[in-house]
This record gives sequence, C-alpha cells and structure tokens, in this order.
Amino acid sequence: MTGTPQKRKLWRDVILFDGLDTLPEAMAVVVEGDRIDHVVPMAQLDEANAAGCEEMGRGGVMTPGLVDCHTHLVFGGSRADEFEKRLEGVSYEEIAQAGGGILSTVNATRAATEAELFASARPRLEALMRDGVTTVEIKSGYGLTVADELKMLRVARRLGQELPVRVVTTLLGAHALPPEFKDDSDAYIDLVCNEMIPAAVEQGLADAVDVFCEKIAFSVPQCKRVFEAAKAQGLPIKAHAEQLSNLGGSAAAARFGALSADHIEFLDEAGVEALREAGSVAVLLPGAFHTLRETQQPPIEALRAAAVPMAVATDANPGSSPIFNPTLMLNFACTLFRLTPRDALAGMTAHGARALGFYEERLRDMHPHGHGLGRIVAGAPADLCLWHVDTPAALAYAIQPGRLRQRVFAGSVTAQHRGEQHEGERRHD
Amino acid sequence: MTGTPQKRKLWRDVILFDGLDTLPEAMAVVVEGDRIDHVVPMAQLDEANAAGCEEMGRGGVMTPGLVDCHTHLVFGGSRADEFEKRLEGVSYEEIAQAGGGILSTVNATRAATEAELFASARPRLEALMRDGVTTVEIKSGYGLTVADELKMLRVARRLGQELPVRVVTTLLGAHALPPEFKDDSDAYIDLVCNEMIPAAVEQGLADAVDVFCEKIAFSVPQCKRVFEAAKAQGLPIKAHAEQLSNLGGSAAAARFGALSADHIEFLDEAGVEALREAGSVAVLLPGAFHTLRETQQPPIEALRAAAVPMAVATDANPGSSPIFNPTLMLNFACTLFRLTPRDALAGMTAHGARALGFYEERLRDMHPHGHGLGRIVAGAPADLCLWHVDTPAALAYAIQPGRLRQRVFAGSVTAQHRGEQHEGERRHD
Ligand SMILES: [Zn+2]
Ligand SMILES: [Zn+2]
Repeated sequence: MTGTPQKRKLWRDVILFDGLDTLPEAMAVVVEGDRIDHVVPMAQLDEANAAGCEEMGRGGVMTPGLVDCHTHLVFGGSRADEFEKRLEGVSYEEIAQAGGGILSTVNATRAATEAELFASARPRLEALMRDGVTTVEIKSGYGLTVADELKMLRVARRLGQELPVRVVTTLLGAHALPPEFKDDSDAYIDLVCNEMIPAAVEQGLADAVDVFCEKIAFSVPQCKRVFEAAKAQGLPIKAHAEQLSNLGGSAAAARFGALSADHIEFLDEAGVEALREAGSVAVLLPGAFHTLRETQQPPIEALRAAAVPMAVATDANPGSSPIFNPTLMLNFACTLFRLTPRDALAGMTAHGARALGFYEERLRDMHPHGHGLGRIVAGAPADLCLWHVDTPAALAYAIQPGRLRQRVFAGSVTAQHRGEQHEGERRHD
Repeated sequence: MTGTPQKRKLWRDVILFDGLDTLPEAMAVVVEGDRIDHVVPMAQLDEANAAGCEEMGRGGVMTPGLVDCHTHLVFGGSRADEFEKRLEGVSYEEIAQAGGGILSTVNATRAATEAELFASARPRLEALMRDGVTTVEIKSGYGLTVADELKMLRVARRLGQELPVRVVTTLLGAHALPPEFKDDSDAYIDLVCNEMIPAAVEQGLADAVDVFCEKIAFSVPQCKRVFEAAKAQGLPIKAHAEQLSNLGGSAAAARFGALSADHIEFLDEAGVEALREAGSVAVLLPGAFHTLRETQQPPIEALRAAAVPMAVATDANPGSSPIFNPTLMLNFACTLFRLTPRDALAGMTAHGARALGFYEERLRDMHPHGHGLGRIVAGAPADLCLWHVDTPAALAYAIQPGRLRQRVFAGSVTAQHRGEQHEGERRHD
C-alpha cells in the first residue's frame, strides 16, 4: 500500500460511548489517517461519501481506546510467593525481614537489565492492550537511584516504540525511601530534586513527576520540594495521596496545578475543593482498594457535587494491585465505589486522558499526536475499541475477558479478535 | 491420523499442581489416549520410553483442567440495564415493578428458543474455556415450567456435545417461585417433585438436583421434599444454602448425602459438622459475595478444622455474579475469603470435581469418562492446563487474563494460546 493514499475508514451502526456519554442513536464513525474525521447519526450518513470509504464493521459498542492513567507496569521479580506466604499465616514482619515487600521489588528491579525489564513488562502491557488499552501511563519508582530510575523510564519509552500503544512516562523517584538513605529521607529528596529530575528531563524520559505522600513514604513538605523541582524543569506533577491517611497531599499537589491526585480514599472536603479549583483529576484505583481490603471509600459524592473529573485506572503493580485487566476496574469502580457505568467508562477514556495532560494547552507540544484523546469526536485521535457487548454499561456489569472485537490505534486496526465471526456478525447481519 | 495409533504425549519439566498440592520437583507428565499414563520427577524419566512420545512442551506451570462446579450459564436476556439503573439511583422496588430482577431473566429465558439460548451461552462458556475450564456444571432454574427447565437442560447438554468441555447438568427447578404460583409455593414444589424431576430423569437431562433454600426462595421442609423426590429417582442432590441467613439448609442437604452445599456464608458449627459427617463439599462463591457487597464471611477456619473439602466456583449468572473468569475467583477466594492459593486451586480442581460427584463410586456410571477428575495422577482423565506463570500461586495472585498456554481436554490439545512463542519458550530454552 506504500504510496497509495489510504482510504478513509467507516464503521456503521455502532452504539457509541463518546468518552463522556452514550449517544441516543446508532452512529457512523469515519476515520481519516490517525484522526476521527466525523461522527454522525446513521440517518445522516452521506452514502455517496461513504462509498469511497473502507467498510470496517457494522454494529457493536464503540468506545474510545481505553486510557490506563496510573500503572507501575515495569518492575523486576514477582511477589506471588509473598502473597502466598501472607495467606499461609507468615507475618508481615517476618516477610519484611526476609526481604519482602516493596524493597524486594526494588532489589529485583535494580538487578534486572533493561532487556529483562522489557521482556517481563511486555506481556503485562499486552494483557492491557487485549482488554482495550491504547494509552498507558507507566511510572518509575522501583529503581530509587538515578541510573535505575532512568533505566525504568527507558524501558517504558521502548514499550511505546515497539508496541502499538501510547506510553506516557512518569518519574516517581519519591516512591519509597531506598535502604541507602535510611534515616535521611531529606537527603534522598535532595537526590530526586537535584539529580533525578534534571537527568530525566535532559534525556527526555519523563512526561510528569509523581510522589507518594504518606506517613510510610514522604511528607507534605518533602513532596512540595519535589513539585518545585518539577516545576522548575517545566514538568507537570501528580501525587499518590490520601490513600491510607489524610495528610493533605492532594491539596498541596493541587496548589502546584497537579494533573491528578491518585487513590484519595481519605480526601476531605478541603481536598475536594482544592482539586476543583486547580482543575485536577481525581484518579480512583479500586484494584488497590480490593487487594489491600480497604474499607475507607473515596468521597465520590463530594467529587461529583464539585464536578471534579474522576478517572479510573488499574494501578498495575506487583504489591498492592497485581491487576492487568482494565475492564475489571470498570466493574470494581461501580461495585466497590458506586460509580455509574457511564462515569466509570469516562474515567477510563476522557477523564483518564485528562489525568495525563492530553487536554492541557501548555502540554500540547509534549503530546502532539494525543491532544484531545479519549473522546470520539471530530478531530480527536482515532484510538477506538469495538466491543462484543449490547450496551456500554455491560462492560462494567459483566466480568468477562475477551470481549474486545477490534482495537484501533492511531487509525489502524491493530487487533481483530476471536468471536468476530460468530457473535458480531450474527447479531447484526 | 485415522487408523494410526496415537502416540503417547509428553510434557517435560513442568511445575505441577496435582489438584491438591504443588510437587517439590520438576515433573514429566505422560498422557495416553484420554488418560494420564504416568507422572514422574524429571530425574526419573525413562528416556528410551520418552523417545516414542510426542513432545508437547517444556516448562511452565501445569494444573488439572479447571472445574467450575457451580454456574447458571444458560439464560435469556441481560441485566446490564438493571445494574446501570441501580447505580444511577433507581430503587430496587422500582426495578422490580418494571419487571426487573430474576423474573426478567425468567421471562427472557422462557421467550428464547433453544437455538437462541445456545447462541448466547456459547461465548460465555468459551470465555470460561479460554481461562482454563475443562469441566463446567450448568444449572437450569430460569424456566420454572417443566418445558422451559428441560429446554435449559437440553441447551446445557448440547454445549457439552459441541464444544470440547465436560458439561454436568443440574436441575434447579426450585430456584425461585414463578409468578403463576404466587401465594402457593407448595403447589410449585409439587410440580418440581412430581413432574419436573421425573421428566428430567426420563430424558436423561439431569445429573443432579439443586434447590435454593432461603427466606426469599424455599423453606427447609420444601427443600426436603425436593431431596426426597430426587433420591427416589436416584439423583444426587446439592443446595444453595446459608447465603443470606442460617436456615439449616446445608445440614438438611447433608442428611440426604448432598454432593455439596453452596454459598454458606452463614453456615454455623452444626452445619459444618453435618457437611463433615456426610462427606459433602463446601462450595465457595466469592463472585456473588463481591457483586452483592456481602460482609458475612463463610466459616473458612471451621471448615478447614473439620477437613471439609472447599470448592471455588464462578456462580456465573446474570444477577448476582455476572462473572465468566474462573482464575479471578482464585484471587477472590484468597483476597476476600483468605484461602491459601493452594486451597483455592484445589477448590477449582480436585474439590470442584468432588462437588460434582466425580469421586462417588455410586455415580461412576453417570460419569464413565470423568471418574477421578481434577487430579494429575496416573489413571486420571487427561484434562490439563499449562500456564504462563512462574508458580501455581501466581494464578491466584495476579489478575491477568490470557495466561493459558495450552488447554488439554480428554488427552487432546484444544487450544494453544498466544504468547506460547515469546514467553514460554524464552523462559525455558
Ligand atoms: Zn500507584
Ligand atoms: Zn447459584
């Protein structure tokens, strides 16, 4: 096909969730190149115009490609043994003494080569992609040295280069205190601010900077220092905050114009108001809530009342959320946090994209092809999923892997899944 | 290959979960026809003998094919809209008045043809199979007339005939009171005992009889009448019991030699003792626990202390567990009910098979090819799964669809999954 201008692509008769809501009529979607050209009700489709298009499919539910806006996909080792030991009655202390917990992941990540980290992360990312992900954020945070944090970010970048998926990278140097800095967390924050962030910027490896603001991690003043350093380098920021207690990390991040505050089970009214004022996204991570058997619910009603956009993500990581199944997070967001299916879907499309900066004018140059992502509207990037379900709500209702029918990345169909012949066609022909 | 005697098949160097436990050494597994011929540590493999075998694979984790011993896979309609309405704030009463709830499924199931029920159940069953299921139990219970219950059971039988999976059928006429019998539940139980059970037996459509023993369904005396009728026809029984309250349904079922008591969140010590005495299996259904946001835990410690075998199943159904993902139930059993990964896996292999009667001498004729199912030992049926994980515990630890590498049903590889080339081979060669 080289040299031949590509035909425009046409999907007919789809039930369309456009990133914010489900449209009331059956729609036609036309894609030109890597952009959505136009979206019209079937009754208004110009058939003369359609005749020149490649017919891509008829019927089914179409959503934007899913945006998983919070993951820790790149890591060394496995924590399956630790999971097993805990359930067999070994105490947390014994596991920690035997080198378990996050430091076991840090040690394994430091010991791994870039090629090994790439090879282990790849099937995890492919699992996300099989479940509809077209954009994924990947954080560093298990290296905790300048060299190892940059190594993780390089692996994340390479995943985005080798697979048909957008990867957004986040430097999370302030994730945990490395053993070398025991009893001197401020010195470690110095390293993050003075060396890690500048090095990541210089090498173009980080699209944002994140912190873990919690009693077991870093204090609000320490996090503010990281935000200052990021700001000085022109990088947007976000925070793991209010997961286990209410330290005010979300409000502190909001004052730096944070793209998002993530977890936020313990967020209070003042925190909600700070997010609203800053236009930050509240990122809900129900997989960690499930895995850690948490009971404190994030303040969904208050966020809704304040019109703070809520995103939903997997938090895929080896400790608190070993979950590589984004549509399950739609179910968890509804079942555990009482989101509506519509809000959960918006949380993994339009609002997930917002949490990554794809709606920020100031970041347009950072994401030249992704600006406006997560919507199915004219001019938006053509990242799309076509699903084997009857209604968009069914994606959150049933827990059923394998419902993706087509995955479209930057205007090209990158996966055509089993079942296409029997279910999709039977239903609509 | 017709006419040619089939070669024996050999898997080398597998980490083996044999249905009850993980073996300490790397093993070799040899299959002849539809049976496991022998299982030996790699060090003891007779290479002269192995030379005549077809080499099927090397490395990976092998488990028995998964046994999903409690499902309601055949049904009409969808309850996604109801799920959505509930989350949007419509009350349970309004939904019931609008024809929602289980009766909406009954109406849709009655209205559906056998072909329609088959077509809608098939992708659900295929989802289970892609996640490792080789044996599935399917209940009736949404027809609630003789004709419609038999129709459901015929669909279940046909699924087992057309797909490479063992289907065990259960008549669950006493699932809910149909509207025609409003205010006369005893008359409906008459119908179940005097017409439904005899008709199902006469047509060879039911392998067992089940009841829903609960305040919102049928009383213990009514369930006992159903058990008597089943016993008179030579059918084994099981019960949905102690899910929402402690009526004593499990103990009543145990006194009829029940294969299993299922749900059992409210089971008390006397109930545990009754199951122990009868040799019944306790079937845990964490998907319904999740979906209904239950808080009452089943008495895991008491069941363990009494050595009552615990099975784990999806309870796949459109209302309380729209879940078609058996390995997720391993995670739920561990995370929500604190089973160990080993117990969860045994619950979906050996103990799941026990809950379906595959270890009962009296039922050997009913399941001639399945006797001894759910173990990887010499002489057992060769239903096997080879997985892309490092340890059996990882199947329960990580929530990651698409980890099945090979699925073997009755000695034949029926699915070879993506990733075989890159992950499995890379790890072991
Ligand atoms: Zn995180
Ligand atoms: Zn059930």
